[in-house]
Amino acid sequence: MNLLQEIQQKIDQKTKPIGALGDLETLAKQICLVQKTTSPTLNNPTIIVFAGDHGLAKEGVSAYPQEVTYQMVLNFLNGGAAINVFARQHQLNLKIVDAGVNFDFEPHQDLIDAKVAKGTVSSLIGNALSSQQIGDCFDQAKKLLERDDIKDSDIIGFGEMGIGNTSSATLIMSALYQLRLEDCIGKGTGVDLEGFKKKYSILEKVLEKHQGLNSPIQILSAFGGFELAMIAATMLEAAAKGKMIIVDGFIVTAAYAIAKAIQPEIQKNAIFSHVSDEKGHTLLLQKLEATPLLHLGLRLGEGTGAAMAYPIIQSAVLFMNEMASFASANVSEKE
Amino acid sequence: MNLLQEIQQKIDQKTKPIGALGDLETLAKQICLVQKTTSPTLNNPTIIVFAGDHGLAKEGVSAYPQEVTYQMVLNFLNGGAAINVFARQHQLNLKIVDAGVNFDFEPHQDLIDAKVAKGTVSSLIGNALSSQQIGDCFDQAKKLLERDDIKDSDIIGFGEMGIGNTSSATLIMSALYQLRLEDCIGKGTGVDLEGFKKKYSILEKVLEKHQGLNSPIQILSAFGGFELAMIAATMLEAAAKGKMIIVDGFIVTAAYAIAKAIQPEIQKNAIFSHVSDEKGHTLLLQKLEATPLLHLGLRLGEGTGAAMAYPIIQSAVLFMNEMASFASANVSEKE
Repeated sequence: MNLLQEIQQKIDQKTKPIGALGDLETLAKQICLVQKTTSPTLNNPTIIVFAGDHGLAKEGVSAYPQEVTYQMVLNFLNGGAAINVFARQHQLNLKIVDAGVNFDFEPHQDLIDAKVAKGTVSSLIGNALSSQQIGDCFDQAKKLLERDDIKDSDIIGFGEMGIGNTSSATLIMSALYQLRLEDCIGKGTGVDLEGFKKKYSILEKVLEKHQGLNSPIQILSAFGGFELAMIAATMLEAAAKGKMIIVDGFIVTAAYAIAKAIQPEIQKNAIFSHVSDEKGHTLLLQKLEATPLLHLGLRLGEGTGAAMAYPIIQSAVLFMNEMASFASANVSEKE
Repeated sequence: MNLLQEIQQKIDQKTKPIGALGDLETLAKQICLVQKTTSPTLNNPTIIVFAGDHGLAKEGVSAYPQEVTYQMVLNFLNGGAAINVFARQHQLNLKIVDAGVNFDFEPHQDLIDAKVAKGTVSSLIGNALSSQQIGDCFDQAKKLLERDDIKDSDIIGFGEMGIGNTSSATLIMSALYQLRLEDCIGKGTGVDLEGFKKKYSILEKVLEKHQGLNSPIQILSAFGGFELAMIAATMLEAAAKGKMIIVDGFIVTAAYAIAKAIQPEIQKNAIFSHVSDEKGHTLLLQKLEATPLLHLGLRLGEGTGAAMAYPIIQSAVLFMNEMASFASANVSEKE
């Protein structure tokens, strides 16, 4: 009997009709296969929120001013943001990574300094990230997973904060899958109709400027940002180490798409937490053949969808480990 | 400013784009309106699993023998069922109610004896429940909510166990909304094709026998069972006391449909946890104009969907109470 058969047998002997736990059974199988066990674990579940600033933000692609990036990082460190609330609720280890915020932070126990630069170059002008900077993001990702407070994590949820980064995600999606801008663009944090027209015309110009990109790294370099590059790099590193990764909303999914284009095997480790209300996300998930766990109309980022999906993933692991079997509970099987 | 405006203002001042928490914002508003507050609570969250046996089960409508009802109750009391795992995970107060199981249980701290009779009459022969027995179910529901370990609960999730009760739910749905049997019937815990044909022909005969039912109580009386009647009664009583109620899968939703037909106002208190994989559930939720939180292909009952939805409901309450506002966190608002 191979591992998959052993896992299936264990699931089918639990005191429930065959298949009655639906997507939880699929999740349990996925985690067991990655961990090569029939008794999976979710040690030190962690959410890492990567923050970075974007040169393009100054062109007016977002409803919010650029300083909201650092202000929200301070909000994370003070425990007042949505991701803090949900991470506390589910007892998740929450870390904030400064991948490239345009601000000098005081040291803080939950803040990891991985700053590559104080914001990207505007992709209207040139490449958002240089090759050197992408290399730096991969180096920082490696160091991140060697930290004492992260290295023993079996599962990492990914979040982001960066005013303007819905634009990066839109551009990456359009270039990676050669999709029309209108199929990828949405309202981000909530631009109005006029703001949306402006955003559309700016992104159109950016796409015209960067044509013929023919590798995921070139696409990442063209559109940024630091937080997306570091998320993609950390996902690849985490999957290589046998960790599960929880993909959050539109922006994290775009970073995941880059990672998957580099290493398709990463899909085995990926759990898709939710489909967001941002327009392009549904199509992006389809392109990735990804089935999200939650459909709650969230569009906040910060890893909030990943944190909210965590208890479902935990349920999948707990039923495998804790439920009685028909034999152990003396329950009659199907007639 | 009225209460709804105060609630909306509090939500909109949180450090997030307007509407970015999607369905959580809808949930927060619903709970605040029921509790008449902008700072909602979820004191002593409780799952009550109602168990009962069905005369119709002996005709062969289920994939499992009738004794599985009492065996699963013992499994609940020993902590080995899926609902035990999820209730422990989310620290929910779990109580099992014997509404009418065909078995004599030893006393147990988590078992509430509310037995009306040892199983219903087969609805092929007569009414599953007499008027007197329905009255008993309503009396037991009242007593249940006066118990010290339940009366302070702000929120109650409803679960069920009863071999054959998918048939009761199907019959109730068909009679209540005058729907064709084929639109309401499904495979329950997993009958095969032959079993399904048998179930179909039995339920067809039951519907022929009970025609012209013209009140929700008559429908409940015709098709049973004790657990469905006691669920409907307890929901009505809980809503009247200002508690939130979490509706689980197909069978609990059918009991809810009876309760709503008696008292439409109950919808204000109801949260629909999930849409199950049982065929009739999607249509039943549509008839109730109900939007379920989870879509996970569950079809287990026991209140497992209600327990799994609980952390989402908790997130809605926590963000209202714990998230910082733009002003308190010094975050710039939209430009």
